[in-house]
Amino acid sequence: MKIYVDGMGGDHAPFEIVKGCVLAAEEYDVSITLIGKQEELQKELWKYQYDKNKINIVNASEIITNDDEPALAIRRKKDSSMVKGMALVKENNQSVLISAGNTGALLAGGLLRIGRIKGILRPALAPVIPTKMGVSLLIDAGANADCKPQNLQQFALMGSIYMNKVIGIELPRVGLVNIGAEAQKGNELTKNTYELLQNTNINFIGNVEARDIPYGVADVLVCDGFTGNVILKLTEGLATFILHSLKEEIFKSARGKIGGYFLKPSLQSFKDQFDYSEHGGAPFLGVKGGLIKAHGSSDANAIKNAIRQGIVYLQQDVATHIEEEIKNLYANREED
Amino acid sequence: MKIYVDGMGGDHAPFEIVKGCVLAAEEYDVSITLIGKQEELQKELWKYQYDKNKINIVNASEIITNDDEPALAIRRKKDSSMVKGMALVKENNQSVLISAGNTGALLAGGLLRIGRIKGILRPALAPVIPTKMGVSLLIDAGANADCKPQNLQQFALMGSIYMNKVIGIELPRVGLVNIGAEAQKGNELTKNTYELLQNTNINFIGNVEARDIPYGVADVLVCDGFTGNVILKLTEGLATFILHSLKEEIFKSARGKIGGYFLKPSLQSFKDQFDYSEHGGAPFLGVKGGLIKAHGSSDANAIKNAIRQGIVYLQQDVATHIEEEIKNLYANREED
Repeated sequence: MKIYVDGMGGDHAPFEIVKGCVLAAEEYDVSITLIGKQEELQKELWKYQYDKNKINIVNASEIITNDDEPALAIRRKKDSSMVKGMALVKENNQSVLISAGNTGALLAGGLLRIGRIKGILRPALAPVIPTKMGVSLLIDAGANADCKPQNLQQFALMGSIYMNKVIGIELPRVGLVNIGAEAQKGNELTKNTYELLQNTNINFIGNVEARDIPYGVADVLVCDGFTGNVILKLTEGLATFILHSLKEEIFKSARGKIGGYFLKPSLQSFKDQFDYSEHGGAPFLGVKGGLIKAHGSSDANAIKNAIRQGIVYLQQDVATHIEEEIKNLYANREED
Repeated sequence: MKIYVDGMGGDHAPFEIVKGCVLAAEEYDVSITLIGKQEELQKELWKYQYDKNKINIVNASEIITNDDEPALAIRRKKDSSMVKGMALVKENNQSVLISAGNTGALLAGGLLRIGRIKGILRPALAPVIPTKMGVSLLIDAGANADCKPQNLQQFALMGSIYMNKVIGIELPRVGLVNIGAEAQKGNELTKNTYELLQNTNINFIGNVEARDIPYGVADVLVCDGFTGNVILKLTEGLATFILHSLKEEIFKSARGKIGGYFLKPSLQSFKDQFDYSEHGGAPFLGVKGGLIKAHGSSDANAIKNAIRQGIVYLQQDVATHIEEEIKNLYANREED
C-alpha cells in the first residue's frame, strides 16, 4: 500500500501539504511519497521531526496551476507533480494519489493517465457534504456535466460501495436528486434513471428533493455532474454567506456583541459542522487505484484526513469491489 | 385593472388569504375578487372592517388540493377556485390571478386555461431568492425540467423585463447559472445558451457559479427548471436548517442561552432576510395577463405583498413588454 501526495497542488502548497504528511506519518502506519520540487519539499520537511522511513520525496520539476487548461496541462506538463503522481498510481494500483491542485486537470488526468476501472463508463467526483446526520456523498459533483441514465446507475453503485466500505454505513440509502418525490417526476434523465435504480443491487430509497438534502435524508445523493456541482457550490456558498451575515449582524450593535461573546463556542461548534477539512477529500470514483481531490484551500489537517481516507480506501479495496459489482450488474442484465 | 385571488389555495386558506386581501384593500387602491366557496369566504370577510367596494366574491364550488394530479385537476375541476380564476384572467388580460395552491396545477392551468404570450415557447416560473444585495430572480424554477437554449434565451429576456419593470432595476445584470466562469464551461445546454445570450438585447454578464449566488452577483439567474428548482429548494432548506441548528446549539448550554437572549434581535433581523413572505410570490412569466404563485405557506402578509406585486405587474404592463421584446428578438434575427 502506498500513498502519493502532490506536494505542489493547492492554495497553501507546499507548506500545509508537507505538514499534513508529517501529521499523517505520526498518526498512521503508512508510507507516504511526496511528489514535487525536491528542494522546496525537503526544506519544508526539515522543519519537522518525523520518521524518515515513512516519508520520501520524488522530484518533479513542473507544477500544474489553477490557470492551466486542464487537458492541455495533463498532456504537456509531463514532469509535473500531478502527472508524475498519476504515472505512479498507474504502475501500482495498490496506491492512491492525493492532490489539492487543479480539479479539471485531476479529472482529465484520472481518465488519460490512470484510466478507468473495467466496465466503468464515466468515473465520478464524489465529495461529502455536511448534513444533520453527519455526511452525504454527492456523486457526481462535476466530472460529467452531461449524463445518461446508465452513468447515474454506475454512480449509485460506486457511491454505495464507497459509503459502505470507507464510511462504514451498512446499507447506504441511495437517493436520486430530483424535483419531486414521486417516481414520475423530474427531467428526462431522472425519469429514466429512476427505473434503472429500482433494478440495481443497492438500497434505493427513491427521489430526494434538494430541500431535504441538509437533513441527511440519503447517504448517497445521485445526480449528473452539473446538478451536483451546483449543489456542492451552493451549499458551500450559502453556509459561508449565512455565517458571515450572522457575524455582521452580531457586530452591528453592542447587544449583539455581548450575545456574540457568549455564543462563541456554539457558533464555533456549528462552523465545524461545515468544515470540509474534517472529511478528507473527494474521491474520483471509477479510476484504477485511487485518486482523491482535496479541497484547494486544504490545510495540514485536511491533508492528514485525506491521507487517512486514502488508507481506508486501499485497505477496503474499494476499486476491486467496484469492478466486481459492475461486472455483476451487467451479468445480471444478460440473464434477464 | 383587476386582481383575482384564489381564496382556497394554500396551507392557511381561506383564513390568511382573506386577511391578506383585507390588508391589501386597506393599503392599495385596488379592486380585488376573491374566488372560492362563497359562504366560507364571506364568513371570513365578516371578521373585518373593509371597503366593500374593493373586495367582492365569485363563488367556486370545487378546490384543487396539493394531492390532485395537476393536469387532471385542471381539466376536471372546472368549478374550482383556481380554474375559475384562470378563466377570468383569460377574459380580461388586464388582470392577474394570485394563488397559493397546487404549483403543478397552476403551471398546467397557465398553459391550458390562460395561454402563452405570442412568441413565447415556454412560460417560466420566476421566484426571487434572498441575497446579500437584496434579491435575485431565478428563472426557470421548475416549470420546464428539460430546456433548449432558445427557452433559456426567452427566460433571460422575460426575467430582465420583470426585474426592470417590477423591481425597478435599471439595467438588470443577467447571469447564466453554470459550473465554471469561462464561456466554454458547462453542459451542452449552457454552452449553447452562452452565445445566444451574448446576442440578446439584455445586460448579459456571463456565467454565474452557484457559490456566488448568495452574494447577489446577478439580478437575473437564468437556468433550466430542474437546476432552478434545485437552487430554490436547497436555498430554502439550507437556510431553515442552519437557523434551526444554530438554535439547537444555543439551547445546548447555559452560556449559549445567555448569548441567544442578547442575540435575539440580530437573529430575527437575519431571519427576516430569508423570509419569503416579504417578496410576494413567483410570477409565471410568459402567460397572458398575469399569474402569480404565492408560497404554499403564505400568511396574510405574503398575500398582501403578492397583491402589491400584481398591481405593479399590471401598471407596468409587463406582459405587453414581453410580447414586444420577443417580437424584436426574432425580427432582429431575420435581419441577420
